[in-house]
Amino acid sequence: MTEVYVVGADMIRFGRFPERRIEDLGADAALLALADAGMSIRDVQAVYCGNQGASGERIGQRILKQIGQTGVPVVNTSNACASGATAFREGWIAVKSGLYDIVLCVGVEQMGKGMLGAPQSYNGVAVEGVIGSATMPASFAMLGMEHSRNYGTTIEQFAKVSVKNHHHSTMNEKAMYRFETPLEQVLQAEMISYPLTKLMCSVNVDGAAAAIVCSEAKARQLGLMRRAARVRGSALTSDPYTPQNTAMMDFNAVTRLAAQSAYEQAGLGPNDIDLVELHDCFATAELLHYENLGLCADGEAGKLIDSGETELGGRIPVNVSGGLLSKGHPLGATGIANIYEIVTHLRGEAGARQVEGARIGMTHVVGAGSACAVHILEKSE
Amino acid sequence: MTEVYVVGADMIRFGRFPERRIEDLGADAALLALADAGMSIRDVQAVYCGNQGASGERIGQRILKQIGQTGVPVVNTSNACASGATAFREGWIAVKSGLYDIVLCVGVEQMGKGMLGAPQSYNGVAVEGVIGSATMPASFAMLGMEHSRNYGTTIEQFAKVSVKNHHHSTMNEKAMYRFETPLEQVLQAEMISYPLTKLMCSVNVDGAAAAIVCSEAKARQLGLMRRAARVRGSALTSDPYTPQNTAMMDFNAVTRLAAQSAYEQAGLGPNDIDLVELHDCFATAELLHYENLGLCADGEAGKLIDSGETELGGRIPVNVSGGLLSKGHPLGATGIANIYEIVTHLRGEAGARQVEGARIGMTHVVGAGSACAVHILEKSE
Repeated sequence: MTEVYVVGADMIRFGRFPERRIEDLGADAALLALADAGMSIRDVQAVYCGNQGASGERIGQRILKQIGQTGVPVVNTSNACASGATAFREGWIAVKSGLYDIVLCVGVEQMGKGMLGAPQSYNGVAVEGVIGSATMPASFAMLGMEHSRNYGTTIEQFAKVSVKNHHHSTMNEKAMYRFETPLEQVLQAEMISYPLTKLMCSVNVDGAAAAIVCSEAKARQLGLMRRAARVRGSALTSDPYTPQNTAMMDFNAVTRLAAQSAYEQAGLGPNDIDLVELHDCFATAELLHYENLGLCADGEAGKLIDSGETELGGRIPVNVSGGLLSKGHPLGATGIANIYEIVTHLRGEAGARQVEGARIGMTHVVGAGSACAVHILEKSE
Repeated sequence: MTEVYVVGADMIRFGRFPERRIEDLGADAALLALADAGMSIRDVQAVYCGNQGASGERIGQRILKQIGQTGVPVVNTSNACASGATAFREGWIAVKSGLYDIVLCVGVEQMGKGMLGAPQSYNGVAVEGVIGSATMPASFAMLGMEHSRNYGTTIEQFAKVSVKNHHHSTMNEKAMYRFETPLEQVLQAEMISYPLTKLMCSVNVDGAAAAIVCSEAKARQLGLMRRAARVRGSALTSDPYTPQNTAMMDFNAVTRLAAQSAYEQAGLGPNDIDLVELHDCFATAELLHYENLGLCADGEAGKLIDSGETELGGRIPVNVSGGLLSKGHPLGATGIANIYEIVTHLRGEAGARQVEGARIGMTHVVGAGSACAVHILEKSE
């Protein structure tokens, strides 16, 4: 099996673009990634497109229509928040198979067009609250409270995740929100679902990101190795059977399974990782995933955020892009935006937020019902 | 790259099951295919699920929840009428890559739940007709009329496709409709869009089909080669740029591209094919695809249906399953149901409709906007 490299990656600045078409957002990202690789759409032998909200609408083909209908295979994937990461992974598999040397992976989402918008209501009453269905904020609030009960994790520790990631976002021009949020401000923001205030919830935005994956032989032939990132591990998991898992929402178990698989594939462990982009859909989630990804022992996540080791400049910076909490979380785009962030650091091109000497980075996304993807990327040379 | 074999395949009888859940239809097909291969869900290392109408709803994971949440990667694909064939092809690629030995591919669709149901109407007037939008029947009616103008193809020749495929369906216990439709009956049925009468349009049904793909080494190790079918060619194409192609509906160009690619990959030509399951979404389509797939020269499709050579017992039987016209066309299931049909003939297990001595078979599906998949399968030993 050939080694596979990311030889181009980019994203549009996440934001709200109700006046634009989804295929134009995706085309913008695809063109940026192609330019980054020094390629044109004519070089691309297959296309994978991740999207959740419009996943039956052949978004991949519509993107191709904007930038070049070359007749190549186009595969549309959907896997909730892991839709983009799934598209990336399928591109990686396609190159691994030897069928293709150059594959375009694109992820795109318009959250504003009907996705996760106004809650369902009936006679003016928000149905989700009344019927007690597990909304995402409620689910991650409960997971946080469970962690508090088991390990004494405090609301301040959860809130520090938002402080950290918002601070990081001030150094990322592609983040939706770019401002500092002091601890008091996070704690005093509108309460959404205890312990989650509004500033501890990720941002629903529109966005797109793209990556070009390439076989080693072709990357060498084209002289692209200097800025390339090797895919050392790629894992996708669904929720395993657990007695607690009746709704396919076991974000912890599915993440542990994916991390284990990716580490094994890469022949690496948590201590080898220089930076992580993980799924901070809510502030509580980041602490849970410190443990799920093995960045600290079970029960130690509160101490890890207190230590400052996951901040830029610390031992293992997490979400230096600003994370979903401030960069924004356009579902289908998120997984590939994570790849872009890691690749940018491995290249040493991350500017003010550069993780110095980054050689190995990890990405993680996890979706409800049920899909988790973990990728480990390594500086090529 | 390893050779890849289909070692299990089956489908549920297509029909209308409004009282059943989509994941239960998919689970039924998956269990049938697993039983056919002599496997359990514990043997499966990855799952690909093709679906169009509910493609954002993680149908693959929901199917797994019914038959065993083992934590394996689940990828949901959508590509219109090629959704199932795309899932099958991704499974093939995954085995080719060497990452997995045994992959489950499942396709499922509930057409009755909102898909292609009643046409849009406004104040009681069917909007599609009034605004002149290209509905599928209208599109394929126009393509048929164009063929008539160019080559003198007659409405009787188009109608003979329905007569043939309905005749075939009487021998297939898994077809939705199983009755003879004499030529006069086809011609006198309700006119939908000239020259297409109701009996010349495919049937909207619910359905599911599944296939197990397996590496050669594993198939040999498990003693599954006797009933296995080798995947000799697998092509997926999107609409190429053509001056006529502004709506990504160039069913002819995209099919020609896919056929050419599959033939090249297999090192075979049309004369090597013993039977074909092609995309007879409308009777006109079957004649167009005779030419697009190279079964006859351009302009000769009318003569080919007149000759009887595409009937069971003829030189190159087409749609001996009954085809979409009588077996039914549940979008996401169709591509894998085609695979099942070919595999059944290569095994010599097709009963009354068996194509004698079948060694090589071809499947073809093509979806609007834009995806075409062609597969060539060969008897293993």
